[in-house]
Amino acid sequence: MKLLKETLKGIKDLDKEAMKKSRARIDNLIKPKGSLGRLEEIVEKLAGITGNIFPKVDNRVVIVMAGDHGVYEEGVAPDPQELTAIQTCNFPKGITGVCALAKQARADVIVVDIGVAADLKELGVINRKIKYGTDNMAKGPAMTRDEAIKALEVGIEIATEEIKKGRNLLTTGEMGIGNTTPSAAIISVLGEYDPHEIAGRGAGLSEEKVSHKAEVIKRAIEVNKPDKTDGIDVLSKVGGLEIGGMAGVMLAGAANRVPVVVDGFISTAAALIACTIEPKVKNYLFASHASKEKGSAKASELLGLEPMLNMEMRLGEGTGGVLAFNIIEAATFMNSEMITFEEAGIV
Amino acid sequence: MKLLKETLKGIKDLDKEAMKKSRARIDNLIKPKGSLGRLEEIVEKLAGITGNIFPKVDNRVVIVMAGDHGVYEEGVAPDPQELTAIQTCNFPKGITGVCALAKQARADVIVVDIGVAADLKELGVINRKIKYGTDNMAKGPAMTRDEAIKALEVGIEIATEEIKKGRNLLTTGEMGIGNTTPSAAIISVLGEYDPHEIAGRGAGLSEEKVSHKAEVIKRAIEVNKPDKTDGIDVLSKVGGLEIGGMAGVMLAGAANRVPVVVDGFISTAAALIACTIEPKVKNYLFASHASKEKGSAKASELLGLEPMLNMEMRLGEGTGGVLAFNIIEAATFMNSEMITFEEAGIV
Repeated sequence: MKLLKETLKGIKDLDKEAMKKSRARIDNLIKPKGSLGRLEEIVEKLAGITGNIFPKVDNRVVIVMAGDHGVYEEGVAPDPQELTAIQTCNFPKGITGVCALAKQARADVIVVDIGVAADLKELGVINRKIKYGTDNMAKGPAMTRDEAIKALEVGIEIATEEIKKGRNLLTTGEMGIGNTTPSAAIISVLGEYDPHEIAGRGAGLSEEKVSHKAEVIKRAIEVNKPDKTDGIDVLSKVGGLEIGGMAGVMLAGAANRVPVVVDGFISTAAALIACTIEPKVKNYLFASHASKEKGSAKASELLGLEPMLNMEMRLGEGTGGVLAFNIIEAATFMNSEMITFEEAGIV
Repeated sequence: MKLLKETLKGIKDLDKEAMKKSRARIDNLIKPKGSLGRLEEIVEKLAGITGNIFPKVDNRVVIVMAGDHGVYEEGVAPDPQELTAIQTCNFPKGITGVCALAKQARADVIVVDIGVAADLKELGVINRKIKYGTDNMAKGPAMTRDEAIKALEVGIEIATEEIKKGRNLLTTGEMGIGNTTPSAAIISVLGEYDPHEIAGRGAGLSEEKVSHKAEVIKRAIEVNKPDKTDGIDVLSKVGGLEIGGMAGVMLAGAANRVPVVVDGFISTAAALIACTIEPKVKNYLFASHASKEKGSAKASELLGLEPMLNMEMRLGEGTGGVLAFNIIEAATFMNSEMITFEEAGIV
């Protein structure tokens, strides 16, 4: 609890002065004012985050959190639960989707076992297991309040270690069979949506099973009565360990003034938890892609960040976040490589 | 005319067999089927284009075509016409928007003077000038049919030279004060739209002037009566030299089985010309970003290619195309770096 409290105390407003200077420079680059649209906004926001009008994002990492879900036993996911453990061990081997995309984007990938329901032997998986998967939220809270705080603190610790190594751009990924269910539950609670509007096909459920999944979420909310004004309460009752870890990464990014890219559906749920705990966190986040998962558009709207990419992806793992690394880096190149009208001798 | 005819004869269908093999591999990579959405479609299309199920896009170039427009004298653009010449000379210096983004995307930029209304002395600008800007399309054809064919052939020649050097991914950019006007005219003719639905603010026109611009386009269409079934006729009557050059690049890409990324509004107009001349060209094109220019969504719809990026950009120069290079490369990394379920020992 102490680490969480200190982290929250460290989250400040954006540097408005740096943003003003950054915007003045961007408006003078040799192009019609505003014509590079969101690339310009990215640089201005990075200036506000870092206090530097020539921000760099050349040291990038994807932090993948892995955990299992007690609610799996309700039949909310098409894949065997063991896939969480198997796939978690595939990250250090560099063969999963996000690893492939990270190579292109010149980013590293690290993976943390924060709650997989098995002991993992693979070297390279960071063991920060809080417990062997959450409890079944359809019957009671997914975890205790203490466990939820621990999950947030694991995320804070891991992200802070990475930032100490010089990382200047983070994204969060996840692995956890069944984790679109707690994500949809979080979004439903925080946005006061009917779970039928939010629950989607996840890794490939049939339409019929999606309706069952929504009913399971409804039951979980009725049984647990999460308090939507208390992010930790929502996380503990209808969340997941990896979702808490991801939210922790976002809190640490904000506290250390390092930008964090939000991946897709599950990352957005984690971002909503982080922003419920401390609304200023939003200033340190970038949304990457519009996920194909059903409730994704509503979740992004609720978070208030518009995605850059429209790729109909729904894999998770941080794949959308790492794709957006390229775009955010391109924005910094616009800022540092273009020159102003004065410098070009055009008045 | 001979080069154009031969090029058109060389444009064939996609390699369906390679696409089938590519899709089979993609469906077996360790992820839920279809979960990488459009990244998967990109690889499948690249396989169809190249005939290779492990396509590479590691040798990239932006071909910028520069030209002026007689219709400028009607008051359709806010900037001085001289900016075309000045800015064209800034490409070899590496300081324009697309140059900055190309550095990030590890791509080269070349610039061709296909019709700037001044003699350019800057080393590095390739001189293929057809004439000193088009004629005023509000009074008569922008160029003769022969000039239009020459513009297409300049594009074909330049692109073919680049492809001979080993380029495996192209995009087109442009520089030409006033060129959203002929672009909007082309889109209006080919899509049978009222120019008021398509003409936009360009580099920053007032709402009032946009309406004037649409009226100028209407007049140009009435005066010239372009035949919408004849791409060369449309290009010559209400097009531009750089637009012809860009369409030529696309024709050459298709004939040589090299993918071409379509940038924004003006590139889309060029793509529509190319696809009117030979509909198979579309199979070799990727759309990059949804430009902020007014008629952009309708133009993309008419072309039938959905953009990947939503960045509210409207600079042109190829800036959206070069941003998309990153995404297309990421798709090829997904394909070559991920492994299949069998290879991973997961059944």
